Parts: sequence; C-alpha cells; structure tokens
Amino acid sequence: MTGKLYGLGLGPGDPELITLKAHRILSGVPVIAYPAPDTGPSFARQIAAPYIGAHQLEVPVIVPMRVERFPAQEVYDGAAETLARHLDAGSDVAVLCEGDPFFYGSFMYLFERLSDRYETEIVPGVSSMMAAAAALARPLAARNDVLSIVPGPLDDDIMRARIEAAGAVAIIKVGRHFARIRALIEAMGLTSCAGYVERVSLAEQRVLPLADVAEATAPYFSMILIYKGGEGWKARTAAATE
Amino acid sequence: MTGKLYGLGLGPGDPELITLKAHRILSGVPVIAYPAPDTGPSFARQIAAPYIGAHQLEVPVIVPMRVERFPAQEVYDGAAETLARHLDAGSDVAVLCEGDPFFYGSFMYLFERLSDRYETEIVPGVSSMMAAAAALARPLAARNDVLSIVPGPLDDDIMRARIEAAGAVAIIKVGRHFARIRALIEAMGLTSCAGYVERVSLAEQRVLPLADVAEATAPYFSMILIYKGGEGWKARTAAATE
Repeated sequence: MTGKLYGLGLGPGDPELITLKAHRILSGVPVIAYPAPDTGPSFARQIAAPYIGAHQLEVPVIVPMRVERFPAQEVYDGAAETLARHLDAGSDVAVLCEGDPFFYGSFMYLFERLSDRYETEIVPGVSSMMAAAAALARPLAARNDVLSIVPGPLDDDIMRARIEAAGAVAIIKVGRHFARIRALIEAMGLTSCAGYVERVSLAEQRVLPLADVAEATAPYFSMILIYKGGEGWKARTAAATE
Repeated sequence: MTGKLYGLGLGPGDPELITLKAHRILSGVPVIAYPAPDTGPSFARQIAAPYIGAHQLEVPVIVPMRVERFPAQEVYDGAAETLARHLDAGSDVAVLCEGDPFFYGSFMYLFERLSDRYETEIVPGVSSMMAAAAALARPLAARNDVLSIVPGPLDDDIMRARIEAAGAVAIIKVGRHFARIRALIEAMGLTSCAGYVERVSLAEQRVLPLADVAEATAPYFSMILIYKGGEGWKARTAAATE
C-alpha cells in the first residue's frame, strides 16, 4: 500500500485560521513537507508549528526565491522524487501550503508530478484575500460584482483594463511593484476606494487606506483591495483616512 | 459594556472545514444568528450544527429567497435591531455565514447596520470557490493568471467579455442560468477546460467536467470553473471525461 498525498491549506498566517480538517491531518501524518527559502524560515511551517510533533518527519522543499518566481522544473522534480520515496514506503505525506493550495500556490508543481501515481487529496484553506477583506472590514465583492484577482507583475496596460472592467479587484503579489501600482490606481481615480493590507492575520499585520501608505515599497506578502461598489464604502474608507 | 458582533465564516459546507477560530467563537458566544429561508433549514446553521450547544440562544434571520436576491432594507433593518438588543444587553453575537462573510455574503447588510455602533470582528472562512478547485483537483489560478469571479445572472455580452479577458474564471450563482451559461462557454470553445461542481464538500457533492452534465438546470449552490492555463490541465480534464 502506498501512502496518500495531502495538499493542506493552512490559511493566511494566524495558526488559528487553519481548518479542523487540516488540523486533524497535520496532527496525524508521519511526513510533513513544506516549501522553504534557501535562507530563513518557511512561512508555511511557521503557521503549522503549534501542531507539529517531534515524532513527525519534516521534509523542507528548498525553493530559492529566484526559482519560485520562475519555477525550475528540476527543483520540483527532485522534491517530487523525495516525497515519492516516502509515499512508496507507505507513509502519508502532507504538503503544507500557505493560504489555499490551488489559489496561486506552488503546490500545483508537486501535484502535477505526483497525483497520477498516488491517491491525493486537497484540503482547501482560507485565502489571504478573504482575510484581507476581513481586516479592512469591507466586502471583497457583493451581489453581481465581477471580482478580478490581478497579479502585481502584470503590465500597466493590462492591469488598467482589468481594473476598469471589474467591480472589485484584489491585486496580489504587490511587493516591489507597489509604487507603480499605486500610481496607476491614483491615475484611475480609485485611491479613495483602495485599501492596503500587509502580512494579514499575523501579529505584525498592517491595514490602512492605500492613500496612507508612506513607503514606496511593500513586502511580498501584501495586497491591495479595490471595492468600487457603493458610495457608502467609499465614504467609510475616506473617513478612516482622516 | 455592549457585546461584540462576529461575522463567522463557516466554510463551504463540510463542518470540518471551519477554522479553529470560528469553532472557538461559535462554542463560546451566548447568541447565534443565521440567515434562514422562509421555509426549510438554514444552510449556515446546518454547517455549524455539530458545535451548537443547548445553552446558546439561536436567532434565525428570516430572509425570503425572493428577498435574498433583491435585498429588502426592511428585512435587514429588523434583524439588525433584534441583534442590537442582544448586543446592548452585553451579549456577544455570532452571525453564521456560509463560506466567507465578505465574499458575496449577505452578512454585509448586517455589518453596515451594526459595525458603527458595536465592536465587530470578521472571521474569514474557506470559500466554496477554493473548495470547488480542490474537488476538481486543478488550480483555480497560478503564476500571473488573472482570475475573475463572474456572477451567473450577468448578461451574455458582459460575461463573454470577462471570460475572454481572464486566464481563469469562476462562475458563481449559476442556478437557473446554467443552460445559458453552458451554451456561452461552448460557443467560446472553452468547454474542454471547464469543470462543474455542485454542493461542494457535502455528502451529496457532484464534481464533473462541464461537458458531462446531463441536466439543463443546476441548484443554487453550484459553480463552473474555467482554467485556460496550460495544455496539461486541458488534457487532464479531457481524460477525466472519457
């Protein structure tokens, strides 16, 4: 009997925002794998830390930041073979995923290498996008709004068109694109209905109207939400700015 | 001291997909409110049922289906005043929300009536959209894809434009619009990369390629996911069809 592969969504960062199901599986599997940078801690492991026991085998999947942006097949080929050895030995393996495994997650690179060979289950998680709306205390989208998730690295022309076409927008992967994106939102006259959230649900979370962000850069784990719907929400954001 | 208002995201339906945080709050509050149809059970309450105790006061917020689609101010005015009485008496109140409270949720109608007067906390939940991608076993979106969430009631012209512009699409609130939406997706040549999910994460869940859906209608809790990204995923969907 080969083991079962789990893609475990852990939520946005607060360990209390993992699901009961992820908690149960995390507590029970013999092997826990997680993406880790070449230096520094693994964010996914940090979220799960309160629930990992000394009896569990940990397998970091080292993904250099350079490679994470332009995924190198070799990195995931090697990691998949490592996990396959544990699965072949009959051990269940849980791959820890920040947020949700299939919402812009790197888990897909392991999934596409292993799911044909091993029983696989994805456990969905709370996305940082939902947590950001909760932190900003305003809806992501409502009624018949179109909500578009727009990655920050996209060119201004495409980003402008996607923002114009949607009733609500979440700009993810903001990071080093922050100044350019903010200038675009300002040029579109949407700053008053834009909120900024950094390291959502963690102790060091920052939540503020986009207009109030003093810095010209943002960390990788940051997001801008634009909600055009309703003058009430614009007024609320404006009031929060004062 | 007035009570605190919680908007509790409960996830897509499986009671095990609620977060540890929602579970803690749900177990501790004296008053639990939830939307309920004029006839039949409340879906939000069904999700929370395993965790509700006999000592907790339940306050159904009766929202006729007709009204849920075209929210009547009076319904939410009345519900807000009922909850305000409990909050004024010093009781914390948790409003149960299917999925995530701010992702197309009706909680916003209570939130906008009460959050200025009472301390309010939103607890994000797992969205049915993430659960649908997990059930279909393919990514919602990856890398620099634009993901657009498109409500089913939108007109064909707008829906077509939004689908064309995005790399990945989630069509929500499909329900009685199913036949029209499927015809549009077929006309756009995208059926081979479209998946259908109904009552996700529940025992009666149905997951299949859109091409395999025999019915001409769909229940309210159904969703179509389109993922254009990568021939591998198209091939996988096609293989699942055979």
